[in-house]
Amino acid sequence: MFISFFIKEVNMKRYNVAVVGATGLVGLEMIKILHERNFPINELVLIASESSEGKKLKFGEEELNVQSYEEGIFSEIDIALFSAGSAVSKKLAPIAAKSGTVVIDNSSAFRMHNDVPLVVPEVNADHIFEHEGIIANPNCSTIQMAIALNPIYRTTKIKRIVVSTYQAVSGSGKAAIEELTNQTMAVLDNEEIVREVYPHQIAFNAIPHIDVFEDNGFSKEEMKLIHETRKIFNDDSIKINATAVRIPVFKGHSESVYIETESKIEVDEIKRILLETPGVKLVDELKTSKYPLAIMTKYYDEVLVGRIRKDLHVKNGISMWIVGDNLRKGAALNAVQIAEKLIEKGLE
Amino acid sequence: MFISFFIKEVNMKRYNVAVVGATGLVGLEMIKILHERNFPINELVLIASESSEGKKLKFGEEELNVQSYEEGIFSEIDIALFSAGSAVSKKLAPIAAKSGTVVIDNSSAFRMHNDVPLVVPEVNADHIFEHEGIIANPNCSTIQMAIALNPIYRTTKIKRIVVSTYQAVSGSGKAAIEELTNQTMAVLDNEEIVREVYPHQIAFNAIPHIDVFEDNGFSKEEMKLIHETRKIFNDDSIKINATAVRIPVFKGHSESVYIETESKIEVDEIKRILLETPGVKLVDELKTSKYPLAIMTKYYDEVLVGRIRKDLHVKNGISMWIVGDNLRKGAALNAVQIAEKLIEKGLE
Repeated sequence: MFISFFIKEVNMKRYNVAVVGATGLVGLEMIKILHERNFPINELVLIASESSEGKKLKFGEEELNVQSYEEGIFSEIDIALFSAGSAVSKKLAPIAAKSGTVVIDNSSAFRMHNDVPLVVPEVNADHIFEHEGIIANPNCSTIQMAIALNPIYRTTKIKRIVVSTYQAVSGSGKAAIEELTNQTMAVLDNEEIVREVYPHQIAFNAIPHIDVFEDNGFSKEEMKLIHETRKIFNDDSIKINATAVRIPVFKGHSESVYIETESKIEVDEIKRILLETPGVKLVDELKTSKYPLAIMTKYYDEVLVGRIRKDLHVKNGISMWIVGDNLRKGAALNAVQIAEKLIEKGLE
Repeated sequence: MFISFFIKEVNMKRYNVAVVGATGLVGLEMIKILHERNFPINELVLIASESSEGKKLKFGEEELNVQSYEEGIFSEIDIALFSAGSAVSKKLAPIAAKSGTVVIDNSSAFRMHNDVPLVVPEVNADHIFEHEGIIANPNCSTIQMAIALNPIYRTTKIKRIVVSTYQAVSGSGKAAIEELTNQTMAVLDNEEIVREVYPHQIAFNAIPHIDVFEDNGFSKEEMKLIHETRKIFNDDSIKINATAVRIPVFKGHSESVYIETESKIEVDEIKRILLETPGVKLVDELKTSKYPLAIMTKYYDEVLVGRIRKDLHVKNGISMWIVGDNLRKGAALNAVQIAEKLIEKGLE
């Protein structure tokens, strides 16, 4: 059943790890990051849908076979990283958890469950150990905002947030990358565009519609930003308003974030604490046109923060521009970092 | 000197009109709109830089020659529509005004001058007649927001606005359209991109930088949204925060707008008054994925408003998504509408 076997450091405890949804954009990134970060793997099991069975994926120099789910597949797995959508998570995560595997789930299926910690390691690593078999990875747009705001929140509570997002199509998977590519060429060639992933043309457009709409007029993506941020900070007093928008960018979510803090904090002080914050890179030098950009996520795993400025009319109001890699820190990297924290404290 | 002559309705007063910056994106749109709206023109003079001298431009079926500026060119002009940038406006608009021409200026040169009305006809047409020779056309991103918010403001005062923009490259002129096109092809072909108009790659990216940065950390485009909105509503008590972002869209600015009103107003009430507001089109039916989109500006001169919803945590907080044609209502059409109001009340 296990298709690979590694012993790199004999004295280090090593774990059996599964990636569920291994052939998706986030799954592939998880495999890459596990290798990059030299995660102490004993055996790595790659699971995907039946249609991907038999495919081979690279793990460093090795080639591993992709398997489909079968009963008992989790029995010897210590940690399973799930990124195969909510439906698969709802079905398989409880099975894995029951067999003793710790599931780190990238879907929205369990995020708001009371007995499921929702974790950004830089922000609330202490929540990890409250798990009962499942730990949830927050939504990509939530993770980058939480990381950037956390050091400010620790200095002076944040009373409110108004966020508008500029989200990349890779958040919708491979088909969306293809759709943006194809539609872009069609528009430039003055040909008919084809829509499959998005309800409207995404090429050279901005679509204020991510995930489904709820009865209150907000989209589910917007509600994730609201609910998940409150859960991560364990603070339901933060007033949050969100607008989630898809734009024709391949990778890297950008966010225009306005906050109001409880007490006064100067821009220089914010810059100083962000400079000291792991996982954050301050990019804020207006004279040389330096500020975070979606295309920079090619080079940085950190969340990029810039354009920090004081509101001109509202006391303790601050604006900033936050950019993050939606596939890595926004998904795969955060999940692997949760796994690292788990084993750091000793996984049972 | 005048290169065309029209008499369409004998008994109607007709005017000598000049378009300064006739070969630019907005100038061309002005000429098109003057014709579309059957503006009562006696003679139309097209003025551009020396490099465009001798070019011919269509005005309906006619072909008109483009002239460069020469002394006395405004002496018989009743109305001059300027869209050739601030430097040209600063130099030529006072000369034109002095010779008795009413200048409608699309640049930012005079917008905040005390003796220059800043006009969106749907909002503050009454300000037009306070002019002393120059009337300013607001910034494109300001116009569409003012039109959408005005009917709400007239119902209950707006206390604060937090706006994040998603602006099209056509706002930067023809060269920017070319730059987006060329960079897009370069990225898809995996070739080196060339930057000339924007400081960073605009293809498949989002750039939080429009116009120059001021010392307070805001860009001039953001300051325009703040100052101009207050001037148009003649209300310096509105607290405004703005983030202006360029995205890879050819035409149509989108805006994520959050407001707080003084008293309670229901979403249904807002929709009802927007339905009755000239210049506004309500596009807000989430069940069928109907909301304003930048690409819709191809079909509508109206400002499109949708995604209207109540804030979940803040009393009297409301979010919406506002889209407008940055070249037409955001510039050329607004200027022509000001001219129409001028002659409606009898231009001296």
